[in-house]
Amino acid sequence: MTRQLHFNLFVHGRGHHEAAWRHPAATTQSLTDITYYQDLARRAEAALFDAIFFADALAISHEVEHNARGGLEPLTTLAALAGVTERLGLIATASTTYTEPFNLARQFASLDHISNGRVGWNIVTSWVTGAGPNFGYDHQIEHAERYERATEFVEVVSKLWDSWADDAVLDDRAAGRYADPTRIRRIDHVGRWHKVRGPLNISRPPQGRPVFVQAGSSTTGRRFAAAHAEAIFTAHLEKASAVAFYRDIKDQASALGRLPEEIVILPGISPVIGSTEAEAQRLDRELNELTVPAVGLEHLSNRFGGHDFSHLDLDAVLSVDDFPDPETVQAARSRTEVIISFVRRERPTLRALLHKLAGARGHLTVVGTPEQIANTIEDWFESGAADGFNVMPPILPYLFDVFADEVVPILQKRGLFRTRYEGRTLRDHYGLERPANRFFEQASPALEPA
Amino acid sequence: MTRQLHFNLFVHGRGHHEAAWRHPAATTQSLTDITYYQDLARRAEAALFDAIFFADALAISHEVEHNARGGLEPLTTLAALAGVTERLGLIATASTTYTEPFNLARQFASLDHISNGRVGWNIVTSWVTGAGPNFGYDHQIEHAERYERATEFVEVVSKLWDSWADDAVLDDRAAGRYADPTRIRRIDHVGRWHKVRGPLNISRPPQGRPVFVQAGSSTTGRRFAAAHAEAIFTAHLEKASAVAFYRDIKDQASALGRLPEEIVILPGISPVIGSTEAEAQRLDRELNELTVPAVGLEHLSNRFGGHDFSHLDLDAVLSVDDFPDPETVQAARSRTEVIISFVRRERPTLRALLHKLAGARGHLTVVGTPEQIANTIEDWFESGAADGFNVMPPILPYLFDVFADEVVPILQKRGLFRTRYEGRTLRDHYGLERPANRFFEQASPALEPA
Repeated sequence: MTRQLHFNLFVHGRGHHEAAWRHPAATTQSLTDITYYQDLARRAEAALFDAIFFADALAISHEVEHNARGGLEPLTTLAALAGVTERLGLIATASTTYTEPFNLARQFASLDHISNGRVGWNIVTSWVTGAGPNFGYDHQIEHAERYERATEFVEVVSKLWDSWADDAVLDDRAAGRYADPTRIRRIDHVGRWHKVRGPLNISRPPQGRPVFVQAGSSTTGRRFAAAHAEAIFTAHLEKASAVAFYRDIKDQASALGRLPEEIVILPGISPVIGSTEAEAQRLDRELNELTVPAVGLEHLSNRFGGHDFSHLDLDAVLSVDDFPDPETVQAARSRTEVIISFVRRERPTLRALLHKLAGARGHLTVVGTPEQIANTIEDWFESGAADGFNVMPPILPYLFDVFADEVVPILQKRGLFRTRYEGRTLRDHYGLERPANRFFEQASPALEPA
Repeated sequence: MTRQLHFNLFVHGRGHHEAAWRHPAATTQSLTDITYYQDLARRAEAALFDAIFFADALAISHEVEHNARGGLEPLTTLAALAGVTERLGLIATASTTYTEPFNLARQFASLDHISNGRVGWNIVTSWVTGAGPNFGYDHQIEHAERYERATEFVEVVSKLWDSWADDAVLDDRAAGRYADPTRIRRIDHVGRWHKVRGPLNISRPPQGRPVFVQAGSSTTGRRFAAAHAEAIFTAHLEKASAVAFYRDIKDQASALGRLPEEIVILPGISPVIGSTEAEAQRLDRELNELTVPAVGLEHLSNRFGGHDFSHLDLDAVLSVDDFPDPETVQAARSRTEVIISFVRRERPTLRALLHKLAGARGHLTVVGTPEQIANTIEDWFESGAADGFNVMPPILPYLFDVFADEVVPILQKRGLFRTRYEGRTLRDHYGLERPANRFFEQASPALEPA
């Protein structure tokens, strides 16, 4: 079979455009209404998407005054979506900095059981500046330390998921033996940040462990992703940077002894779709006209570690000197460098930059017809920029429906996207192996001749 | 209306009897199969129960060799049950010792939104000795410190749930104002154990906060329950101790300025039901014959802080000198004292004690016909021993079904139990007020004349 695209539906408020919540085509449901998310999950499954994905932030932003924020918590949301879907992958973000490893390992194991093997974990170190003070810290923990912790955290939870052999549960009623205690073991992890004895108090997840998703773009973040990630979310405003990122990650992974197909790279794409180019452009303008500059400035400030841009004239041309050095910023590198190189290249006004970022916060925004969107997707896919996309509809559910109804069939006709689910787990959809257990050999296959 | 009984279905493995998993009438479903729990929740709702309840332990016990342990995690389970029920309350256990307050507050708020106001939190300090080492501690944190932490923890999460006024979300699309920032505030909590800035990143739960459930029986535990609990789970082998407990809690609560009806007291009851007394006795014997002494000894040891009973003759009569002093034991006081007073009173053999505890770990076990079970329930209810019961079927789902089909109708005929749901939230079912917000006055009622 030819190489196939992978698509996730990335859910964000009432759409990824920061003014989506005000647009007449957006849902009017509350962000705390689970039926809104259940409905989106059903639509994503009907469109044969690989997964639905929820980002997260461990603090509420000031932008809540002018933007729809404060939705449901991702892990409880996934559990509620598992029941209304059968094949769709379910990916939630959770923090390696502000969660106890035992609790996280257990909740993800539980979710993987609840969904029969459809869960992915987007591993984040939690860059938003407000998170630390919600967890006992005076300030945000700095970038390098967050990644050191993340590396150890992933090791601890991986050990916990492996602390039960796949065949540990016997359930032998006649003999009165429920489990084989020699197939369940302590992990006795003692590291710099964590000390966890184990074993976990739930059996090994159906997928062995959740699919590891990561989105770091700094040098440290890429190194981490190359070592651990099985799917990578990434933000690029242009194909050249996506190609460079793609090659860098796959090269780093190869250097670590991993196969290129063990990592699925999924840039974000925010498609503003119209039946004509003019209609798409009109929709894009409508959205930008609904933006509130305070929201864009708050976003930009958050991206740059709290740097204040509000003294700048909205209609004056920006220079890179208006920005702090990304190396000094305690925030997600993934976006800061993308933004600064865009400023250097395009010399936009502050207002134009805010509009550019309003669509998808530094991800690729494509404004056009279904054919044009499909062409961009195919181009990136065939150029070594992407194995698929994190689809970020600017307006939900409206622009997801248009994508599913108009863009997906074009890609299916070109033989680039599935026409039915082949597998049942998220690993199946992404073409990933179920990991071996580091502590226990697999039980002999039942059909092996004696 | 006359005072009404409250019933929860307390789910535990394949039934509360420690040999339930081996009994032919028990489910054969896996403990990690969500459809098992969804099915039980549907049955509890059909029987008009107030709630379904999940206990928890943050370490797997050695008894897993001979007993069905290691089920799904409670919070993710509740989210998955919310979608298959409409009225049933959903109560999960979570620890004040081993969870970050921001994470717990947020997940419960999310669950209360997902379930439209049906969530309760069973507040535990996590007594099992294996928990500490799974969370970085060399040993279990001692009893008094656990309760000091719990008191502060409850204060922190309560502040977080109140950090959004009920009317904080405006969702005013025309004006571009999503929320009123003057109706969302930091909590700036700085205490001995926790430092949390807030606000929470999700709006106030439909019930204001989850219903607070507690089960402490030590002096400290009772003081905590009298101050905070809205529903109390408690274990008694005889009515006299239940009456004394009931009176003590309501007196302590009154002394703190609370009304008696603000606390619903629910002892556990484990009904072994047969259509004749002889049939019920036979079922009880069948279950006891399936027990493995090692499991009972492990339970008993856990109850007494790891004390070893295995050198004792199973068929010799016990004395209180065979037990350590409960005051020196770092474990749940709720059970140790009940067990020792039973030994003092009845002088059982070790085997007889293990059988007594095998049914429901120190809770009331009633073996008899539906009429006899109903009589005991009515007697305790009318004697000031209970406002209802935590129903602990020895075999699931079989003995729950018998209870629902045979016992509930008798109580309904006597006017003691609802014949339809009157309310929609767990607070409605228990007759509890929605708590005021400590930071924000309620918005004026919409129908108030100007």
